[in-house]
Amino acid sequence: MARGPSNRSAPIKITDVAAAAGVAPMTVSRVLNTPDRVSPETTARVRAAIERLGYVPNLIAGGLSSRKSRMVAAIVPTIAHPMFAGLVQAFTDSMRQAGYQVMLSICGYHDPDDEGLFRALLGRRPDALLITGSSYSPAALQMLIEAHIPVVEIWDVSSRPIDMMLGFGHAQVGAEVAAFFHAKEHDRCAVLVADDSRAVSRARGFVEGVAKAGGTLVREMIVPAPSTISAGREGLRSLLPDLGERCALFCGSDLMAFGVVTEARIQGVAVPDRLAVCGFGNFELAAQCDPAITTVSLEGVETGRSAATMLLRRLAGEEPRDADRMQVPFSIIERATT
Amino acid sequence: MARGPSNRSAPIKITDVAAAAGVAPMTVSRVLNTPDRVSPETTARVRAAIERLGYVPNLIAGGLSSRKSRMVAAIVPTIAHPMFAGLVQAFTDSMRQAGYQVMLSICGYHDPDDEGLFRALLGRRPDALLITGSSYSPAALQMLIEAHIPVVEIWDVSSRPIDMMLGFGHAQVGAEVAAFFHAKEHDRCAVLVADDSRAVSRARGFVEGVAKAGGTLVREMIVPAPSTISAGREGLRSLLPDLGERCALFCGSDLMAFGVVTEARIQGVAVPDRLAVCGFGNFELAAQCDPAITTVSLEGVETGRSAATMLLRRLAGEEPRDADRMQVPFSIIERATT
Repeated sequence: MARGPSNRSAPIKITDVAAAAGVAPMTVSRVLNTPDRVSPETTARVRAAIERLGYVPNLIAGGLSSRKSRMVAAIVPTIAHPMFAGLVQAFTDSMRQAGYQVMLSICGYHDPDDEGLFRALLGRRPDALLITGSSYSPAALQMLIEAHIPVVEIWDVSSRPIDMMLGFGHAQVGAEVAAFFHAKEHDRCAVLVADDSRAVSRARGFVEGVAKAGGTLVREMIVPAPSTISAGREGLRSLLPDLGERCALFCGSDLMAFGVVTEARIQGVAVPDRLAVCGFGNFELAAQCDPAITTVSLEGVETGRSAATMLLRRLAGEEPRDADRMQVPFSIIERATT
Repeated sequence: MARGPSNRSAPIKITDVAAAAGVAPMTVSRVLNTPDRVSPETTARVRAAIERLGYVPNLIAGGLSSRKSRMVAAIVPTIAHPMFAGLVQAFTDSMRQAGYQVMLSICGYHDPDDEGLFRALLGRRPDALLITGSSYSPAALQMLIEAHIPVVEIWDVSSRPIDMMLGFGHAQVGAEVAAFFHAKEHDRCAVLVADDSRAVSRARGFVEGVAKAGGTLVREMIVPAPSTISAGREGLRSLLPDLGERCALFCGSDLMAFGVVTEARIQGVAVPDRLAVCGFGNFELAAQCDPAITTVSLEGVETGRSAATMLLRRLAGEEPRDADRMQVPFSIIERATT
């Protein structure tokens, strides 16, 4: 404990730096905030003193006076899901390159207190906000509006976005998977998802799509979140009695689909001849396992980058434009399980 | 654009709340900061005005005056790795329950500018810091010490921690896997890792362990990070000519190990008879794939929770104690691939 927090000397202050460099404290502040107004010689002297003393400028105080925190907040339900992990990583990389730190909050799929979360985040005065989804309590919505900062909603599409939007219709994804199965002459279908609202929307869209195509829905199975490999394995065991000669199954995620395909091999169910499987998310696992899994591709990395670009344009002072409400494209990638 | 940031009215200020509630601004501040000094009737009136106007208290200003930001910063190399994803999620959940927001930074495995990152984070005056690893530039280290806040280092063990530590010896993990293979009478061994410094430490420990046990090292293969499924598949294809009748392979991650096992099945290499495989990380994938993969278990979730507990104890004013330097236990979980 000789080093570190037990060392009770006072933190280095701007005045200490000023004394060490032989300049006024305001000059140190100018070097930090408006370096073009200071001579190169003075800048070099002040920077050397900063280095020597290990001085850390208080960006909070700077943020207060300039009303810019150079910090953006992002809220996602989870990072255990590769789509969100990729999205957050790409968003963070892009924002950091532009000089912004990202304060990430992981709120889970069922956050009853969105108002408390938004109050905690907005109270730190971020310059901009990325949020996942578009269902908020009226009080939380009011807070987002009152914040007067650029907001981008990702992952859902909404008819009433707060500001910018970058999502896709989950029910539409389900409907397109149903049409894809129909085109492959599957008239018996099933769906297996975890109980988060977007996965359930995809399941509903799928069920409607199957009905519209004149197919038979063998089973709609909703299991507790999260959508894991073991949930897929257990799901198939439960589904087996209803399977029949030939069935097509839409899964809530690629992890679940991988669990289904693994359990099918163990149980001797031929994939894709007896059981066709489609996942969701285009994880590396779906592409690299054997048999490779047909899935819906979402481009989490691309979404993260685009969200950063949208926010950075606004932060640079650009006016809102039509392209600020974008549908993220999705596509079905056909592989060996269908 | 009728709602949201294009609405250019001024943000709600504390004076607006005070006027609406018929009290002095200082009374509003007391309701927010020292509610026990305000009567219940006044508190109710002020809270109603806050709700009605959608006022968000400026926690940055509050943080400046009280010198507590109720925010902790965490730095991890990636969240694409399930160990870190689980750790961050558990750490965030624990800190949020205690009333702290976590500002997460994802720095990658090769951050040449730790000083810049620390300056950006510490400048926002977090109450505490979680960092991954224990190799910093002298300037960055100095900054961490000068910050005078509780710091917990995870993932590595170091002989000179800055403050608190919660890690394990990567070389020791490699040595124990070598001993495990030796006990199973594997005298021909190989190792396949990505080029991040900890994975390379594990590989070195493994190579030394194999030599110590009198075994033969067939190949030490280091591929570019990250440690993915496809890197495992490609790795095995490259390793195949050296494989011989019987070989044991230690992989840098479970993703890589899964790639190896998948490619082995495709290439007709019998696992575990001809090729024994051990992964690292105990991801859900290793437990749930078929054959299930032998691996090293690290308890990311437990590490995240313990790190939060350590920091919260200090934040509550407790003195440093010996238990603040803990080795995280690891264990080899034997499954079907060895």
